[in-house]
Amino acid sequence: MSANSVQFIDNPSDPRVAAFQDIRERDLTGREGLFIAEGEVVIRTLLASESLCRARSLLIAENRVGAQADLIAAAGDTPVYAASQAVMDAIAGFPLHRGLLALGEKPVERSVEEVLGELPEECVVLAAAGIGNHNNMGGLFRNAAAFGAAAVLRDERCCDPFYRKAIRVSVGAVLRTPTARAASLEELIVALQAARFEVIALSPGATEPLAAISGGGRKAVLVGSEGPGLPPEVMARLRTVGIPMAGGFDSLNVAVTSALALYQLTTVSNR
Amino acid sequence: MSANSVQFIDNPSDPRVAAFQDIRERDLTGREGLFIAEGEVVIRTLLASESLCRARSLLIAENRVGAQADLIAAAGDTPVYAASQAVMDAIAGFPLHRGLLALGEKPVERSVEEVLGELPEECVVLAAAGIGNHNNMGGLFRNAAAFGAAAVLRDERCCDPFYRKAIRVSVGAVLRTPTARAASLEELIVALQAARFEVIALSPGATEPLAAISGGGRKAVLVGSEGPGLPPEVMARLRTVGIPMAGGFDSLNVAVTSALALYQLTTVSNR
Repeated sequence: MSANSVQFIDNPSDPRVAAFQDIRERDLTGREGLFIAEGEVVIRTLLASESLCRARSLLIAENRVGAQADLIAAAGDTPVYAASQAVMDAIAGFPLHRGLLALGEKPVERSVEEVLGELPEECVVLAAAGIGNHNNMGGLFRNAAAFGAAAVLRDERCCDPFYRKAIRVSVGAVLRTPTARAASLEELIVALQAARFEVIALSPGATEPLAAISGGGRKAVLVGSEGPGLPPEVMARLRTVGIPMAGGFDSLNVAVTSALALYQLTTVSNR
Repeated sequence: MSANSVQFIDNPSDPRVAAFQDIRERDLTGREGLFIAEGEVVIRTLLASESLCRARSLLIAENRVGAQADLIAAAGDTPVYAASQAVMDAIAGFPLHRGLLALGEKPVERSVEEVLGELPEECVVLAAAGIGNHNNMGGLFRNAAAFGAAAVLRDERCCDPFYRKAIRVSVGAVLRTPTARAASLEELIVALQAARFEVIALSPGATEPLAAISGGGRKAVLVGSEGPGLPPEVMARLRTVGIPMAGGFDSLNVAVTSALALYQLTTVSNR
């Protein structure tokens, strides 16, 4: 990698920073294999060796260039643009307090089977069904990384984890965790079982408590969206576990549920 | 309680709904002992017997009056106002998809000592230091309710749990969980120890793992904000536990951390 020199941008319409324009609107329309990441911790993850994504360019607030010299060095040949805070805000289309953006390339899309085929004989994965909330999606990836889950698999109703907010909430875990999207929940479960994963579905209605399950071998923790949860016909065919709630309280957040299940499998029951 | 009759509102400036006007702006300025709650689940909690708060009035979208007949009945003598969606949006100052608002009175403020004095001999409480994010605050209350924590105690740097978003994220747990605010973290810890609570501080840097701790007696789980964490001089005087992370990953969300600690104390180690 060659030393990087920062290119200064004065005009918010400069074509070199076109990909950073009107970020919020574009979040909603998709980006053809690209994504926007923001904030120092996330961008360090993007540039680190464990990243599965490639950085295409960086945009940094002028007054942070000095303090971020090592990050700029880590960017290697990736173009780094700098702009005043006002120009940055004008590019992004809203006040951008974090002062640090990156344009990245998503990993090549792979099938669930391909991702599962590369995993070790003994591991835990997270499987997500119908998670439409970017906060929750980011939380699932963050918890997967924290407890060393080997992959996050999604059904077709899940939102895109490479949405800017999901990446931010994941603290960059989206950029380093193998992931794939199945055409349906049915196909996701079939692929997991074919790869000899025991699929454990988390459900408030389950009779077996989470505290009864143990790690070891290949385990998949399946979580559904908070409202409808997992379809009954899916649960009928899987081992289901629940987390007993005190005093008739409603339920736990789905990302919290995933953390509890991963904690149980990887830490509480060390096989 | 007498049967309730719904009063229809045509004019967004009607003084009967003045408390619901420009909700977002008022969130930031405080409400002198009052709060706004939104959504069906939260408002049912507000009206339920376990609520620690009193409802002062309800505002409901006209087209939901029929479907919410039992909720309106549960409101008893509390005035219930109805308005078209357009008038409701004009009152609130933004599009209000949930169609159901309540104005409530916070519980009378009590000291940490008073709240602790009413707790059973054996219980777990959550203690929060410097939690400034309303999502996280709501998550702490939700998890406290789910695992039957007897109270949530806050230091002076914590945000107000009665902020609309925190109530929503807590799924109403803020309205039914005893809580109090200490003048400082120091005073909070002193009060807990005087009431014979073992204070267990969660910290990424701790050497003792969370999985080593057991419930029983009086335990207080202390969590700090995600950035700075708990002050070192506080941790030096307390038992600290951590959750080992995989592959050098940063850390867990503070609400997730609280759920893991409560799960460990109330479920994994049943004493």
